[in-house]
Amino acid sequence: MSQPEREAFARAMLEDVIRAVLDTGSTPTILSTHPSFTWQSADVIVSAAGLNDALNAYFHQVQGPLMIVMADLPLASPDALERVISVWADIGIVPGRGGGTNVLFLKDPRRFRADFYGASFLKHIQIADEFGCSIDVVDSFQLHTDIDEEEDLVEVLIHGIGASRQFLNSLGFSLVIENGRVGIQRNPHK
Amino acid sequence: MSQPEREAFARAMLEDVIRAVLDTGSTPTILSTHPSFTWQSADVIVSAAGLNDALNAYFHQVQGPLMIVMADLPLASPDALERVISVWADIGIVPGRGGGTNVLFLKDPRRFRADFYGASFLKHIQIADEFGCSIDVVDSFQLHTDIDEEEDLVEVLIHGIGASRQFLNSLGFSLVIENGRVGIQRNPHK
Repeated sequence: MSQPEREAFARAMLEDVIRAVLDTGSTPTILSTHPSFTWQSADVIVSAAGLNDALNAYFHQVQGPLMIVMADLPLASPDALERVISVWADIGIVPGRGGGTNVLFLKDPRRFRADFYGASFLKHIQIADEFGCSIDVVDSFQLHTDIDEEEDLVEVLIHGIGASRQFLNSLGFSLVIENGRVGIQRNPHK
Repeated sequence: MSQPEREAFARAMLEDVIRAVLDTGSTPTILSTHPSFTWQSADVIVSAAGLNDALNAYFHQVQGPLMIVMADLPLASPDALERVISVWADIGIVPGRGGGTNVLFLKDPRRFRADFYGASFLKHIQIADEFGCSIDVVDSFQLHTDIDEEEDLVEVLIHGIGASRQFLNSLGFSLVIENGRVGIQRNPHK
């Protein structure tokens, strides 16, 4: 994908995430580090700080429970997010592939500290323990599937039903079976 | 890993799967294509036919509901399998990464046809439709995570709690953070 296509795809993924969040009855707020970022159907907080500093400052401003959802989860569904919101523990967490954290649900955001990047899943488990908070791991592949590399697009073409899938189709991407494995191809004439 | 290590790891993964199946109260039967395969805590059917032919023959022999679970799912948990068994639809399915099928639950095995390999998830959705059966996709990363390549072992070291994790640790495998990403290393002195 070209750079403009990547940016449009990132917005399509965000659109799918926002839609899923809205469908749980929650009110989404977008945290962006781009000074000129705008979005129609959600509040936007633009922060010059890094993700962790911005989140940790925010944790002390908000009242009540807070769910943090990464923007690159095109398979996010209301059902999966509802399972996160419904955890019995103080905190719900959904790991990303490769040790990251894709979703965090904090019943009391003041009793937590975000530490994204690297093995953040294991770090967040430890931080919950430091704060004396119980934590439940929510078992969802829809929320586990973050899009990092081109091969991850296969998952969007197989399981996606929203804007991200539609965008990939509009660029001419489709599934192809090579040596018994599923891959993607792009039709340049489309 | 050497070939004997790979085989021992495959047995450790199967051990984790069998344990999870037993913990749901189900009775496991192992389908193997190795003529000399044996296992202590489960019945074994050795079949010279390929996976699909062996399964489709079996579908006409068994009475009542049947769950098919792949053997390379070291994160399989009783909770996740219970969610599969509890689907409302005629069939429950859990996709593997990359378009495969990791778990199938058939309330009436005579009304289905297995077609594993390639994009089997999409094929199984279509086969359910041909048989007039409803099908529910069960959203579980524990059952979605099949182990194909070495990088997949990261997931076992992060999330595993059973025999597979223990086996990797005994070989000297551990997590390592490189450029902010989680990888694995093997300590050759161990």
